[in-house]
Amino acid sequence: MNKKGERMTHTTRLNGKLTLVAGGAGFIGSHLCAALLAKGDHVVCLDNLQTARPSNLRELESHPNFEFVEADITGPLPASVADRAHRFGRVYNLACAASPPQYQADPEHTMLTCVVGTSHLLRLAEQAGARFLLTSTSEVYGDPEMHPQQEGYRGFVNCTGPRACYDEGKRAAEALTFDYGRMGRAEVRVARIFNTYGPHMNPDDGRVVSNLVCQALSGDPITIYGDGSQTRSFCYVSDMVAGLMALMESGGDGLQPVNLGNPNEMTVNELLGHVLALTGSTAAVEHRPLPIDDPRRRRPDIDRAKALLDWEPRVPLAEGLAATCAWFAEELGGAGGQPMVAAAE
Amino acid sequence: MNKKGERMTHTTRLNGKLTLVAGGAGFIGSHLCAALLAKGDHVVCLDNLQTARPSNLRELESHPNFEFVEADITGPLPASVADRAHRFGRVYNLACAASPPQYQADPEHTMLTCVVGTSHLLRLAEQAGARFLLTSTSEVYGDPEMHPQQEGYRGFVNCTGPRACYDEGKRAAEALTFDYGRMGRAEVRVARIFNTYGPHMNPDDGRVVSNLVCQALSGDPITIYGDGSQTRSFCYVSDMVAGLMALMESGGDGLQPVNLGNPNEMTVNELLGHVLALTGSTAAVEHRPLPIDDPRRRRPDIDRAKALLDWEPRVPLAEGLAATCAWFAEELGGAGGQPMVAAAE
Repeated sequence: MNKKGERMTHTTRLNGKLTLVAGGAGFIGSHLCAALLAKGDHVVCLDNLQTARPSNLRELESHPNFEFVEADITGPLPASVADRAHRFGRVYNLACAASPPQYQADPEHTMLTCVVGTSHLLRLAEQAGARFLLTSTSEVYGDPEMHPQQEGYRGFVNCTGPRACYDEGKRAAEALTFDYGRMGRAEVRVARIFNTYGPHMNPDDGRVVSNLVCQALSGDPITIYGDGSQTRSFCYVSDMVAGLMALMESGGDGLQPVNLGNPNEMTVNELLGHVLALTGSTAAVEHRPLPIDDPRRRRPDIDRAKALLDWEPRVPLAEGLAATCAWFAEELGGAGGQPMVAAAE
Repeated sequence: MNKKGERMTHTTRLNGKLTLVAGGAGFIGSHLCAALLAKGDHVVCLDNLQTARPSNLRELESHPNFEFVEADITGPLPASVADRAHRFGRVYNLACAASPPQYQADPEHTMLTCVVGTSHLLRLAEQAGARFLLTSTSEVYGDPEMHPQQEGYRGFVNCTGPRACYDEGKRAAEALTFDYGRMGRAEVRVARIFNTYGPHMNPDDGRVVSNLVCQALSGDPITIYGDGSQTRSFCYVSDMVAGLMALMESGGDGLQPVNLGNPNEMTVNELLGHVLALTGSTAAVEHRPLPIDDPRRRRPDIDRAKALLDWEPRVPLAEGLAATCAWFAEELGGAGGQPMVAAAE
C-alpha cells in the first residue's frame, strides 16, 4: 500500500524511525493509529484481528505511511517486523481482548497475550532501543476498596476467578514491563486505561456503552446488570488517545503507572438516562444478575497524569455520546465508510 | 539408570502411569520425589538445575523408578516427556526459583516460568488426562493486611515492584490453572505454600532459615533484616510434602486454593534465638534494611487444609531445626552423601 518514495521522504524526516501499534486494529488502537499518522509518524499496525474489526482500518489503509501486518503476538514476531527491529522508535502495546465475554472465551490465550506477547514486544523494544508503552487497565484494581483509585493502590483482585485471566494477565504484564525499565533494558511507560467509549467499539463486545447504545438504537430490550447502581467513569476515545501519546512522549524514568480516564463518575442507570434521551428509545429495561467479581465502583484519580502530562479529558459526555450514537446508528444501518474520528473531536 | 524389566513391573502395577515432578531437583521437589518413590510411584523429575542442587538427587538416582530429565519448562517439553504424554497420571509443578535474590536475578525468566511453564505442563496434563498440582505461594498475599491469611483474602501485592515477577507470576499461574479446571481441560489442585525449611535448602538462596543456620554454623556475623520483629511461620519439609501429596489425591472439584504451612508464627528474632541455642553460636548480629515490599507478618490459616485433607503439620520446630542444622553442618563441612530425609521424620 505504500510507494517507496513517499515512505523514504517521511521516514527520513523522522530519522527513519517507525512506530509499532500492536492491537492497532482494535477500538482504541485504530484511533491511535489515525492520530499518529496525523502527527506524521510512519505506523506499522500489528493485529491478529481476533476482536478487532477490519473496518476500523478502512480509512487508514490508503495512507502512504500506514502498514498493516496480521500476526498474533503470542507467537514469534513476523519477519516484516523482526527484520526491521532496529528501525522502530516507539512500540505501543494495545493488544488484548478487553471485554469480559471476549477475554474469557479463551482465557489461556488472554493470559499468554498479556505475558508472552508483552515479552515479545519488550524484546523488540530492547533490540530497537525503542520506547515501549503498555496499555494496562483499571482492572488491575479489581473491585476497588479505595475510591477514587490512585496508582499506589494495590487493588482488590481475585486471582482465582473468571476475570483473573485478564486482570492478573495485565498485572503480570505490568510487572514484566517495569522489570525491563528497572534493568535499563528499555524505556517504558505504563498507562492504566479506565472505561473508554466512542466510534469503533465492537457492537457485540458486551461493554456497557456499546450494549446500551446498540440496544436503544435497535429497539431491543435494554439489559442492565444488577440494579444499575454500580458506577463507571467514561472517557471519550479522542481524549484517551491524546493521553496515551502524551504519556509515550513524557519525561521521567517511567517507572510508575499512570491512570488515564475521565473522573466524571456516574451510575449505569444515569448513563442509561443519557442514552435514552439521545436515541429517543422507549425500550423496556431487563435486569440480569451482576457478573462474578464485577466492580461496583470505578473512578480514576488522574492527578498524576495532570501533573506529569498536563493532560485531562476535554470531551463532555453529551458530546462524546452523541458522536458514538451517530456512529453506531450508521454502523447498525449497514452503511458504508464512517468518518474515522467522529464529531466530538 | 533404569533396567527396563524393573520399570515395566512397576508401572504395570500402577496401571502404567507416571508421575511428573517439575522442579523435582529443588529443595521441596527432591523430598517430594523421594516420598513418591517410597509410595511406589514411577517418578520423572524435570528440572533445569537453575537453582536446584544436583546433590539433592544423589540418593534417588539409583532408584529403579526414578528418571531425571534436564529441561526448562519455559521451552517446549522435551521429547522424553512429550512422547510419553499419555502415560502421565499426575503432574506436580514445583518449578520456579523461590527466593528473592534468585527469582530477581532474571525476572523475565521467573515470570515466563510461572506462566509459560505452567501452560506447558497444563497442556501435558490435558493431553494425558492427568491431574495437575500447582505449587503457588503465600506471596500471592503480598504484605498481608489480613492475619492470619485465609484463602479468600485477595492479597496486598505491589504489581510494579521488584518482587512482582514472582508474586504476580504465581497469581497468573493460579489464574491459568483454575481456568483449566473450570473449563474441564484438566483436574487441578493449587497449594499456597508458606515458609518451609529443612535439609536440601540452598545455603546461598537468601532465605531466613538457611541464612541464620549457615551464618551461625560458620561463625560469620548474623544478618537480620530490619529489627527482626517481622514474623514468619515455618513448616518442616516432610510436613509440606505430606500436605502436597494429600492435596493431589484429595476429592472435590479442586477449584479453590489450599494454604499449606505451619501456623506456628514467630518473629525472626525468636527464630534466631532457637538457632543460636542449637548451634551454640555467639556470633555478632548485623542489622540491614528490610528489602522492598518485604511482608511484615505471615501466618497461614490452615482450616481448609485440615477439613479437606485431614492434614496438619506434626514436626515441632525444635526437632525440625535440629535436623536442619545437622544437615547444614555436614553440608558446609564438605562431607559426602547425606541421608535423604533427616532425623525429624
